[in-house]
Amino acid sequence: MALDAELALANRLADAARHVILPFFRTGLGSERKADRSPVTEADRAAEEAMRRLIKAEFPRDAIHGEEFGAEAGNSGRTWVLDPIDGTTAFLAGRPIFGTLIALVQEGWPVLGVIDQAVLGERWIGATGQATTLNGSAVRTRACRSLADAAIATTGPHYFDDHDGAHFMGLAAKTDHKRMVMGGDCYNYAMLAMGQLDVVCEANLKLHDYAALVPVVEGAGGTMADWNGEPLHAASDGRVLALGDPARLEDVVEALACNH
Amino acid sequence: MALDAELALANRLADAARHVILPFFRTGLGSERKADRSPVTEADRAAEEAMRRLIKAEFPRDAIHGEEFGAEAGNSGRTWVLDPIDGTTAFLAGRPIFGTLIALVQEGWPVLGVIDQAVLGERWIGATGQATTLNGSAVRTRACRSLADAAIATTGPHYFDDHDGAHFMGLAAKTDHKRMVMGGDCYNYAMLAMGQLDVVCEANLKLHDYAALVPVVEGAGGTMADWNGEPLHAASDGRVLALGDPARLEDVVEALACNH
Repeated sequence: MALDAELALANRLADAARHVILPFFRTGLGSERKADRSPVTEADRAAEEAMRRLIKAEFPRDAIHGEEFGAEAGNSGRTWVLDPIDGTTAFLAGRPIFGTLIALVQEGWPVLGVIDQAVLGERWIGATGQATTLNGSAVRTRACRSLADAAIATTGPHYFDDHDGAHFMGLAAKTDHKRMVMGGDCYNYAMLAMGQLDVVCEANLKLHDYAALVPVVEGAGGTMADWNGEPLHAASDGRVLALGDPARLEDVVEALACNH
Repeated sequence: MALDAELALANRLADAARHVILPFFRTGLGSERKADRSPVTEADRAAEEAMRRLIKAEFPRDAIHGEEFGAEAGNSGRTWVLDPIDGTTAFLAGRPIFGTLIALVQEGWPVLGVIDQAVLGERWIGATGQATTLNGSAVRTRACRSLADAAIATTGPHYFDDHDGAHFMGLAAKTDHKRMVMGGDCYNYAMLAMGQLDVVCEANLKLHDYAALVPVVEGAGGTMADWNGEPLHAASDGRVLALGDPARLEDVVEALACNH
């Protein structure tokens, strides 16, 4: 699958988002509240608008699905999925590990993904059949021989409901839980693609939260799945796993499924 | 209190630690296990050794208390307290928000503190009676009119025992808990000093984890205390609060003390 024009556009989208977002970082801007009370910033909306304009100019038949402005239909079978600031609470807390997420989804499957960190100037790009890169250099996940050796990450226990939280704790207890890290949002998946983490486990993710992560993680040698071990698709239920070493998928799914 | 020579030394200590630590960041180095199973790296030990050498050369009568190599006695009434890598799990997960902590403690009270982020080149310096700076520019905490508006951070619920965790949850529920962030280690206190967070609440901190934070937070207009609202001292019990707005201390202590 040749995605050269799409990759070139994805880079321009990420450039545009960076340009919009950076001036807002660590400023005292007011944060409005959305219906679900998660914070959203002017930067979030302005970055999505900038990206939508570029997509419409270049691929007017493609659909667009963005965190801030919802869905615009297309007729190409392809959808650009955008999350201008993944990790808005981290962004508002001044942490330079939020990210801009850009994905191209074809017939429901993510085929291209970008994780861009504006402050650090880090850009991970993944696409079906290609090696994932950080700023142009290939990155790889690491091997994990046993779940007991795994370093696990999740953004926070408050993003699980009680039921999912109990299952997560069952999994975490079987990893090297002294190396467990909280927080991180999309940055955890980038670190897993770099061989710095072994497992990321989350729930309640939306398509715009996970679509871009799949090509990045899988192009680096890892795998992503739902909590049943099934590949992630536009209709997945938001329970998301990433593994650096695909050989551990069965162990992780089994540990999650235990009756707590 | 003039601390010019001490501040100059603290800068050289932070430079030395950066120099040692940076080459280890995101390398695949093996992580040993200490008795408490938290990961410790070669970088951690080498950075503390480098700092100890510089202190002994300049202030041979000062005591040194470091995370890696313990206590060395002195006879000046002053102790340099060192944590070469605060946030070792974050460091090992590839996150650029760990920090080097350097404090000078006089008769049990922290009078000088440095939080240094090697990857981003960020250095916060605080000292009694002086304005806290980031890379030489003064920083300030922000006002927080009500606990319900407060953004709270903590490194992770797994760092609390069940009892402390219940009290933390009681506090978190009274803040704007949708803006709560997990992870962060010392970086949370730096962000609070920058006016990006309102409350940080943690337990089980050692002197080397909190001593450097106190002058940084207080020199920026905030306050630090134990969970009873008492000033932090070398003999505090490791339950630590930081507030950007000292006017909220009573509310926070009251919310923490509720019977859960």
